[in-house]
Amino acid sequence: MTNTLILLRHGQSEWNQKNLFTGWVDVRLTEQGRSEAARAGELLAESGMLPDVLHTSVLSRAIQTANLALDSADRLWIPVRRSWRLNERHYGALQGLDKAETLQQYGEEQFMEWRRSFDTPPPALDDASEWSQIDDPRYAGIDGEIPRTECLKDVIERLVPYWESEILADLRGGKTVLVTAHGNSLRALVKHLEGISDEDIAGLNIPTGMPLVYEIEDDGTATGPGRYLDPEAAAAGAAAVAAQGK
Amino acid sequence: MTNTLILLRHGQSEWNQKNLFTGWVDVRLTEQGRSEAARAGELLAESGMLPDVLHTSVLSRAIQTANLALDSADRLWIPVRRSWRLNERHYGALQGLDKAETLQQYGEEQFMEWRRSFDTPPPALDDASEWSQIDDPRYAGIDGEIPRTECLKDVIERLVPYWESEILADLRGGKTVLVTAHGNSLRALVKHLEGISDEDIAGLNIPTGMPLVYEIEDDGTATGPGRYLDPEAAAAGAAAVAAQGK
Repeated sequence: MTNTLILLRHGQSEWNQKNLFTGWVDVRLTEQGRSEAARAGELLAESGMLPDVLHTSVLSRAIQTANLALDSADRLWIPVRRSWRLNERHYGALQGLDKAETLQQYGEEQFMEWRRSFDTPPPALDDASEWSQIDDPRYAGIDGEIPRTECLKDVIERLVPYWESEILADLRGGKTVLVTAHGNSLRALVKHLEGISDEDIAGLNIPTGMPLVYEIEDDGTATGPGRYLDPEAAAAGAAAVAAQGK
Repeated sequence: MTNTLILLRHGQSEWNQKNLFTGWVDVRLTEQGRSEAARAGELLAESGMLPDVLHTSVLSRAIQTANLALDSADRLWIPVRRSWRLNERHYGALQGLDKAETLQQYGEEQFMEWRRSFDTPPPALDDASEWSQIDDPRYAGIDGEIPRTECLKDVIERLVPYWESEILADLRGGKTVLVTAHGNSLRALVKHLEGISDEDIAGLNIPTGMPLVYEIEDDGTATGPGRYLDPEAAAAGAAAVAAQGK
């Protein structure tokens, strides 16, 4: 007996469009991002893959994506759970910086280390920065300190407990689960699900707005690699993510 | 110590616009309804009245209203709870009928009894009707039978337990609570909160898209009558509801 897990990265955001490092900065979807989200919901409906419960981060672009996808899949009424543990990786002092300028200023090696190093976070964000979340009420109940920067390893460490206690519990309860989240929080989850090595995860890119489906055993393992509902569009989208900043 | 309760009736729906009896039929907002919802969120933000938790019905028009209002109030991230107990009154065999034609066919007395009688429901909806919710998966977990028709008294009987066990619990926990629901489920709640008599409730109309605010004591009583954040617009809206079918 397996149950269905659907991962969905939010559609294009205002800062994806502007090519800025975003992290925990709470930007909204662009019109294109809204269309991607609605299309993702149509794909779910066309595939008969209807979620029974939704898990989102607490960032608006993931929540907007879920709302638009569930609207076009006619599943607005399902229960919703949100957690900061599904948030995008905190990008530290890079938040708000232009990706192309950062690449030019620091060079390809440093740039790629910040983007894809498994265990080296970027410099910490100053609490006085306009891009800090230190006073954001949505993090008032966070257990422990709000992060000031994160590497992918940090994301895995805060995400996996939520996967095990909340998402997996819903799957074990027989539910089809939709998770709407972010490029790096979904890379962290996919690494965990597919047992991808610390090195190989650097080469994995997740496109925006493309439902990625797993069948999950009761012990939490995936029966195989994830499959995109629209594989051709997903491959093109992943290539575009890999080329960012270039 | 009191806490703030904000009631919000969904914006104009496709069937409000067509002047049809809607009840549990799951129609969407019109463009005007979407604007009303977004404006309601702006009113909340301008008043500094920011919800900490959302309760909605399981009908799409109330959920869309909440999503749009919370987006414009920048509170998309708050926790959400949904219940069929906040649904619109089930309109029985009237669901799908034109209000003006029904008025003409059955006369004003019968029409007003169906719309505003406290304890006489319309005829029951046939399970074979295209407007029946008997096979709708969102009601699979409902305790007891799905209603086939309801009067306002029935709505109060299924709504007040949810008010006491869920909404009031959040208010007592110090939270500002937003409830997005429907003309008659909100009339039922207002009747309960303000102690309005079975006779007088017939004269109460709640406009769409207008935040209605109460301060609630820990024992569940309101400190006074509700106040609309935009009283002039609300009065005009209530008059329009009263004139429906005319």
